[in-house]
Amino acid sequence: MTKRIDNFNAGPSALPLPVLEQAKEELLDFNGTGMSITEISHRSTAFDEVIDTAIARVKRLLNLDDNYSVLFIQGGASMQFCMVPMNLNVAGKPVDYINTGTWSTAAIKEAKIQGLDTRILASSEERNFAYIPYDVKEDGNAAYLHFTSNNTIKGTQWAKFPEPNGVPLVCDMSSDFLSRTFDVKPFGLIYAGAQKNIGPAGAAMVIIRKDMLERTPKNIPTFLKYTTFSENNSMFNTPPCFVVYIIGLVLKWLEETIGGLKNMEKLNNEKAETLYSLLDSSSFYRGTADKDSRSKMNVTFRLPNEDLEKRFVSAATKAGLEGLKGHRSVGGCRASLYNATTIEAVKSLVQFMKDFEKKEG
Amino acid sequence: MTKRIDNFNAGPSALPLPVLEQAKEELLDFNGTGMSITEISHRSTAFDEVIDTAIARVKRLLNLDDNYSVLFIQGGASMQFCMVPMNLNVAGKPVDYINTGTWSTAAIKEAKIQGLDTRILASSEERNFAYIPYDVKEDGNAAYLHFTSNNTIKGTQWAKFPEPNGVPLVCDMSSDFLSRTFDVKPFGLIYAGAQKNIGPAGAAMVIIRKDMLERTPKNIPTFLKYTTFSENNSMFNTPPCFVVYIIGLVLKWLEETIGGLKNMEKLNNEKAETLYSLLDSSSFYRGTADKDSRSKMNVTFRLPNEDLEKRFVSAATKAGLEGLKGHRSVGGCRASLYNATTIEAVKSLVQFMKDFEKKEG
Repeated sequence: MTKRIDNFNAGPSALPLPVLEQAKEELLDFNGTGMSITEISHRSTAFDEVIDTAIARVKRLLNLDDNYSVLFIQGGASMQFCMVPMNLNVAGKPVDYINTGTWSTAAIKEAKIQGLDTRILASSEERNFAYIPYDVKEDGNAAYLHFTSNNTIKGTQWAKFPEPNGVPLVCDMSSDFLSRTFDVKPFGLIYAGAQKNIGPAGAAMVIIRKDMLERTPKNIPTFLKYTTFSENNSMFNTPPCFVVYIIGLVLKWLEETIGGLKNMEKLNNEKAETLYSLLDSSSFYRGTADKDSRSKMNVTFRLPNEDLEKRFVSAATKAGLEGLKGHRSVGGCRASLYNATTIEAVKSLVQFMKDFEKKEG
Repeated sequence: MTKRIDNFNAGPSALPLPVLEQAKEELLDFNGTGMSITEISHRSTAFDEVIDTAIARVKRLLNLDDNYSVLFIQGGASMQFCMVPMNLNVAGKPVDYINTGTWSTAAIKEAKIQGLDTRILASSEERNFAYIPYDVKEDGNAAYLHFTSNNTIKGTQWAKFPEPNGVPLVCDMSSDFLSRTFDVKPFGLIYAGAQKNIGPAGAAMVIIRKDMLERTPKNIPTFLKYTTFSENNSMFNTPPCFVVYIIGLVLKWLEETIGGLKNMEKLNNEKAETLYSLLDSSSFYRGTADKDSRSKMNVTFRLPNEDLEKRFVSAATKAGLEGLKGHRSVGGCRASLYNATTIEAVKSLVQFMKDFEKKEG
């Protein structure tokens, strides 16, 4: 019998059980082809249907019109850190970034490597990124304004997006993509590494507005141009077929089982509130992010001391609650509550935390 | 019951059945973790073991010493077309290429985009790449000499590698990697898109010699540096975990079930001879590559006319023989006989071809 645990990993992370069950069921024979999804040609009608259906689902979920293209690009968000400035810079204009943590910092580094005039409009670095710097003053002169919507490591999330003053927003949504509704209009480009909310590791989903595609310079490497992907339906070369396939199944689950982003957001709010309520009512557990900046995806917290934190994580693992150790760069504890993590898993975690406090507090 | 067909796809292509069966068996619970391989952290000891074991197997299979690093990089061979010149060029030296078909041409294009002094030492373009230009004169002045060991589309393969005259060989081995034994010493870098001989689409395996790593320029994007991958055991960011996992299972099969590259080569020779014998004894089927340049991986052939070719491919599909249509850029027919394609499948194909000739010839 298959043993399954409650998975609070920060990424790669939990996938919806029905998705894995379907993938398992048809792993040797995809859709009556007599081949695994990993064995069929990406130039086949069977795979065309996989990728086209996934794209259509994303467009429906986010209300995207034909002004936006949905792309699958290998390399995760780290590849996007260099593709964004390479493709979207505009001669004579600065590129603007907001620094809210490890991944923003990494994105900023790549713009600077390319020699661009890189302005940091706001940063929460002086308090170890424990909050979102909501007061952003964009003067309207930049090629784009880049921010990270959710900070996996620091446990913060933009409750309300920055005002771009006419400049196209560019967003790394890796760790909260499709977790809530939002208005896509101010965005020139959105990217999300798949391995948190939408699938296995091995691709980023990129949503790009048509006017951004016109910026692609002619003389950069072919594989680094957004137009290479938009002009070939993400199949200039062989795409990461299995990852695209699983993303498609996750999107199907999100549309048909969950019922869309409004429902998903409601469930995610409920999960986050369940856990934050415990933190707020406890003097044993302490949330690390400012209240107006708290992430609904990654709940970061501390215990009274590091020894207790170690014992907490270890006891949780034994109790079937996986992935509660904080990122190696910050320590402490973290519970990631992505779309596929169930409210039941969160309730089990809360119960475990109460029991642990009783014993050790 | 699972129906499985005989798969002659050019890539993505057949995987060994035991590999798929194991992947299916443990898709919901990898190695007793209670999670899918797609759900576990790449920073876990469980995943460390997956990637380290895969690397150790490649090193054993190819007799690699510690002078070589084995890397997994997303983006397939197309990403390598731009990473190779970006990382391995040497100021003041030309880069040398041999043009044996579509993929060589694509690699050459990327070196030229980067403004490098790109010399084409040999080409078989004037006869539509139907042969390997064995007579290569490398003057010894280049930063590297790049060639494509097997040409998936044109059905040709280097029976004996070019003499590099002291220059590091760089090779795109995507479509015959680990299909035969060879001496790795003259090679500075070897890359192979996974989706032909070693796994699902979504990664290239890169084997790089330590002196090549010293060439990486400081100021190129982090994600495009070979050193970023070599210094982080391919885990600077989240690797394509599922693809690495399946590659590991394929390598296990290659080592433990097949018994290594000598045995694999013998089987591949037998498969190729079985099919080429038919072509050579037939006046109905006609191989397209020169005999000394024939690929043991991709057997390209024509029938007397295009109408017969269409009917051949269609009848074969109905008979459970998949993937026999030639690449859209050249037409005709092609049977890909990668490592995972069994001799039984090849014999079924030969029987089908004989029957088809009797009926239609």
